[in-house]
Amino acid sequence: MRIDVPFAAGLLRDRDNIEILCHQSPDGDTIGCGFALCRVLQQMGKQAFITVDDVIPVCFDYLHPAVEKQSFEPQFIVAVDVATIDMLGSAEHIAKYRGRIDLCIDHHASNTDYAKYTLIETEPEAAAAAETLLQVFYAMGAPVDALTADCIYTGIATDTGCFRYTNTTSRTLRIAADLLDRGARFELINKRNFDTRTKTYSALEALALATLNTYFDGKCAMLDITQEMYRLSGSDESEAHPLKALPRQVEGALVGVTIKEEKNGTFRASVRTNTPVDACNICKRFGGGGHKRASGCDLPGATIEEARKNILESIRLELNQYDGISLSQ
Amino acid sequence: MRIDVPFAAGLLRDRDNIEILCHQSPDGDTIGCGFALCRVLQQMGKQAFITVDDVIPVCFDYLHPAVEKQSFEPQFIVAVDVATIDMLGSAEHIAKYRGRIDLCIDHHASNTDYAKYTLIETEPEAAAAAETLLQVFYAMGAPVDALTADCIYTGIATDTGCFRYTNTTSRTLRIAADLLDRGARFELINKRNFDTRTKTYSALEALALATLNTYFDGKCAMLDITQEMYRLSGSDESEAHPLKALPRQVEGALVGVTIKEEKNGTFRASVRTNTPVDACNICKRFGGGGHKRASGCDLPGATIEEARKNILESIRLELNQYDGISLSQ
Repeated sequence: MRIDVPFAAGLLRDRDNIEILCHQSPDGDTIGCGFALCRVLQQMGKQAFITVDDVIPVCFDYLHPAVEKQSFEPQFIVAVDVATIDMLGSAEHIAKYRGRIDLCIDHHASNTDYAKYTLIETEPEAAAAAETLLQVFYAMGAPVDALTADCIYTGIATDTGCFRYTNTTSRTLRIAADLLDRGARFELINKRNFDTRTKTYSALEALALATLNTYFDGKCAMLDITQEMYRLSGSDESEAHPLKALPRQVEGALVGVTIKEEKNGTFRASVRTNTPVDACNICKRFGGGGHKRASGCDLPGATIEEARKNILESIRLELNQYDGISLSQ
Repeated sequence: MRIDVPFAAGLLRDRDNIEILCHQSPDGDTIGCGFALCRVLQQMGKQAFITVDDVIPVCFDYLHPAVEKQSFEPQFIVAVDVATIDMLGSAEHIAKYRGRIDLCIDHHASNTDYAKYTLIETEPEAAAAAETLLQVFYAMGAPVDALTADCIYTGIATDTGCFRYTNTTSRTLRIAADLLDRGARFELINKRNFDTRTKTYSALEALALATLNTYFDGKCAMLDITQEMYRLSGSDESEAHPLKALPRQVEGALVGVTIKEEKNGTFRASVRTNTPVDACNICKRFGGGGHKRASGCDLPGATIEEARKNILESIRLELNQYDGISLSQ
């Protein structure tokens, strides 16, 4: 059932012993929302903990002091920034929560309504789930202190590329201004998320950039990230996130794709687009989804070449939708 | 004479036939301010034109429709985002304007008060001269339409690395929100300034990154940009700006330096620092200046190695000011 902000605020005010679920391959929005909600509930005297079926990237270390470790039998389960139940993690983990999630707070148009109650503001309403969660805090009359502001700022800044992407709105910027006034450590957060190049990341970037290739007269740019690259660079998957932004930056590219080889040998595409191309359409053909300008999907294919062939075909179909975009190959 | 916002607004309201000066190696703030002020004055029925003693980088092409070409004998001369008269351009150009500049609107603490009237908001008050100029427009009761919003947004976004740098304040973000509401084409502007990698820029970056080196136990990272690199990559100086952000991003670096070889064979340093190191102090020793976290100076030295030795000595002196920063070499 779709609900609004005051309804979600009422639910959270009334319940206790709350478990908060983040999605796998956690990004700043799911982690920021998870920590913010957990902190606010704990500050209201409730019991709350966060469950992530994955490693939390070290770049979010600064959020850990925001919450206390608590252990109890959950009576109310909330998923944050989780579009589908499949995004929760392993098959066992998904099975454990299927049909048991009470509330979902999200901003993905592709949300499948797997929770009992779902609060969604999609683009252009909300650039990040953290924007919507903050509205819920305000409606709850909850405290939003400096550490909570850190969490919400992390969600909004990471999902907007630090206010660079087209999902940024004037509301996004005004919320960020309020968070700065509440003491969000934006200097630290921006430095950690946008302005630090570790040696291992730099080595990974160099390897990945060497695979950069363009298709359809330069309208699509693509790069590969393989398990071998993690080994050679001494990096791991949690460092790969910033690479996803690079292919779309290539001059003339309307579609930027990163194909990531997963640990189990399957392939996953991350698709970023420029106006007017719809990234979600490209990924939907493989059961994936996300946002208009940033989506993802698992790709069929036993080799990276097969996976590439599949996503290129979907991109061709999508580019053909637009007048004035002619594909010579 | 230092003046305040209402005084500057009064001057601009009263005068006509106004020439606007931008600094050489023009960046988004000086160009954004120049075009914004020219547009607003022209919309108020005044005569105005912009003078830049340099090439305006193509990434600012979208601003050109904001102003009409006008030709007249100037009666009032305004410099925008120009800290010292030496930043205006060639020696002949500087000689032409020395002692003739009526008003300067700027945000550099190192401003030398070369103009008759000077309006300055320095950091942390203003991240960009464009922030202050917008306050002047409001005080003038001037129209701020979508094209003027484009100009002001350009100045603020480029001087804050799209709201990433520590000079960003909650006022900066609220102003940006207002500019979006006024119709600033932030999607286009961000794409052009922060999200486009031309082939020539990519080639220049690869050449420059190959020179990246660290000093003082990694506390300083430095890269070189030479005339030879422009030739090899097919790029030119106007594309070099984004490279200046890279050395400071190296993990552990407190100081990031770019040494640029100029056309005439001299060397110029761009210095970016992380808290607490003062970039302006490092550059002041060579007669340069700017901001606490971003400054520049010409370097003495007949070769790039001599220039490097000089800036490294100044960095050593600066780093020695801070407790807890020990330099083993």
